[in-house]
Amino acid sequence: MIPFFTGSQVREAVSPERALHAVHDAFISYARGEWTMPPKVYVPAYPAGDFRAMPALGGGYALLKWVTSFPENPAKGLPTVTGLVLLSDASNGMLKAVLDAGAVTALRTGAAAVLAAETLGRKDAATAAVIGAGVNGEGAARTFVARGRHVLLWDLDEARAQEVAERVGAEPASSREDALAADLLVTVTPGREIVLGDGSLQPGQHASLMGADGPGKAEIAVEELARVRVFCDDWEQGETDGTPGRGRIYADDWEQASHNGDLVHAFEAGALGRGDVAQLGDVLIGKADGRKSNRDITIFDSTGLAIQDLAIALAAMEHVEGLDLQSVDL
Amino acid sequence: MIPFFTGSQVREAVSPERALHAVHDAFISYARGEWTMPPKVYVPAYPAGDFRAMPALGGGYALLKWVTSFPENPAKGLPTVTGLVLLSDASNGMLKAVLDAGAVTALRTGAAAVLAAETLGRKDAATAAVIGAGVNGEGAARTFVARGRHVLLWDLDEARAQEVAERVGAEPASSREDALAADLLVTVTPGREIVLGDGSLQPGQHASLMGADGPGKAEIAVEELARVRVFCDDWEQGETDGTPGRGRIYADDWEQASHNGDLVHAFEAGALGRGDVAQLGDVLIGKADGRKSNRDITIFDSTGLAIQDLAIALAAMEHVEGLDLQSVDL
Repeated sequence: MIPFFTGSQVREAVSPERALHAVHDAFISYARGEWTMPPKVYVPAYPAGDFRAMPALGGGYALLKWVTSFPENPAKGLPTVTGLVLLSDASNGMLKAVLDAGAVTALRTGAAAVLAAETLGRKDAATAAVIGAGVNGEGAARTFVARGRHVLLWDLDEARAQEVAERVGAEPASSREDALAADLLVTVTPGREIVLGDGSLQPGQHASLMGADGPGKAEIAVEELARVRVFCDDWEQGETDGTPGRGRIYADDWEQASHNGDLVHAFEAGALGRGDVAQLGDVLIGKADGRKSNRDITIFDSTGLAIQDLAIALAAMEHVEGLDLQSVDL
Repeated sequence: MIPFFTGSQVREAVSPERALHAVHDAFISYARGEWTMPPKVYVPAYPAGDFRAMPALGGGYALLKWVTSFPENPAKGLPTVTGLVLLSDASNGMLKAVLDAGAVTALRTGAAAVLAAETLGRKDAATAAVIGAGVNGEGAARTFVARGRHVLLWDLDEARAQEVAERVGAEPASSREDALAADLLVTVTPGREIVLGDGSLQPGQHASLMGADGPGKAEIAVEELARVRVFCDDWEQGETDGTPGRGRIYADDWEQASHNGDLVHAFEAGALGRGDVAQLGDVLIGKADGRKSNRDITIFDSTGLAIQDLAIALAAMEHVEGLDLQSVDL
């Protein structure tokens, strides 16, 4: 009998706080080489959307997430993100559980956005904002709130921003500009339009770019990445400790980021090279530099890793006995 | 509500004969570029086994098979091949069905083995044999029997060969040599030992190599592939039509075959190049040559394609209403 976690059962089993810790540990295990992962595979069904097959291996389990991105689906009353997460025993291949992929994805995307913001943002960051109130934007806002932060939420669809903000305990931003000025900024848009144009990020800001996860998508302009790459404060404008601000660019995984996501366009334009980008997990284990100054601009490009999904699935499994799960007899 | 096909329900929905036709059509759709497929991704959990994530797109559906190969599992009372096939609507990403991967794999592997044998073997082939009586070998034997052929079945484990032969209506081979002499030969072994050594294939024979589907596995010696590649009968020994026998080598998919399977070792040794190998689907649509002489030696290297699994899943869906399927509410 294979147990099935519905979306609400995934959320019941794994709180945003628990997800954050689980994803933190997964990034560390991955950086240490203990958890492994081939790059995700895209199955294009454009213009409607695409499917992704995302395998990972770690903690004695193998995981496969089969998940969609169909941005026009909500207009038809269907979810943008749907699919299943399959969790198998790595010692003998036997299937152990099936989980709703939408809920797992929202939890781990929210967790990664906030993990990057807390790791790379200013320690004294006062304001946090999320741009985009879809399921994964809601996940990010929910995780910020769980961490005790006041969060501004903005969406092109004002009613949606209002509704989601109420649900998660965030505040609808009065304007896009207000949200964009936050110390800790998370963008979770469909990636069809640039959110961060040339010159938009201010000294001290952190931006977690979560939305541009497929071919041709971007949330930040190549010019802005190029500018941040070479950004260096004048000494005069520096903090009292005399450390000038620098631009610092990070990815969840260099291999995936070089194929999809916000950095690809800059790589292809020659505006960015591998040496310009550090991995989040490497910062967590002290192998790469994080923020050095309160005037640094930090950018985190998320492509979404299957090891994050594995972290959530294993956290859910801790509650496999306590929930009234459906099951299927194979 | 997502319907679930157990292994026996997959077999109830799709006969070996139906599977053969479905897989035949899938190879044609794939050769024509109507069905598409990224190469499968391996997740290694060696030495115990591995997982494969196999996506495909065609007929308005997207498919993902998450399937294992753990050769030592039967000794523990567990299946070598297990996992799930997920079938989604390609227009909106919604999950339509989940199927037992072991049953789908056995049906499509048996179908491909026999399809290749019937397409590439002698039209007047009298004898057929299957080496290896695991689940996929059983699938191949069952498909040959469904086509009205007398089949010899051989396995290192004599009792298993006996039991499977009885179940499918095949004959246990009295010796390995007897089986190896068949006009239409199918090998479905774990690929840890060479089945076809240098000089083993005789003029006129066809061999479908189904077993060596993972890194480091092989069922045929590189020397034998190299010999067959340049094999050319003397005119004197040729058939009465004066056409000398030649060696002809085929794969299910060049891209996959160049990464896994029996041909890799020959590619790496420089004994075989891309121009030496034709794709089965290209033969079916007349884009590549098939057998030209009754003294040709033909070899088909199967790596296993997700488009085959898609063919079986769609055939099963034709019976989604008629079976008493379990379902899960996501």
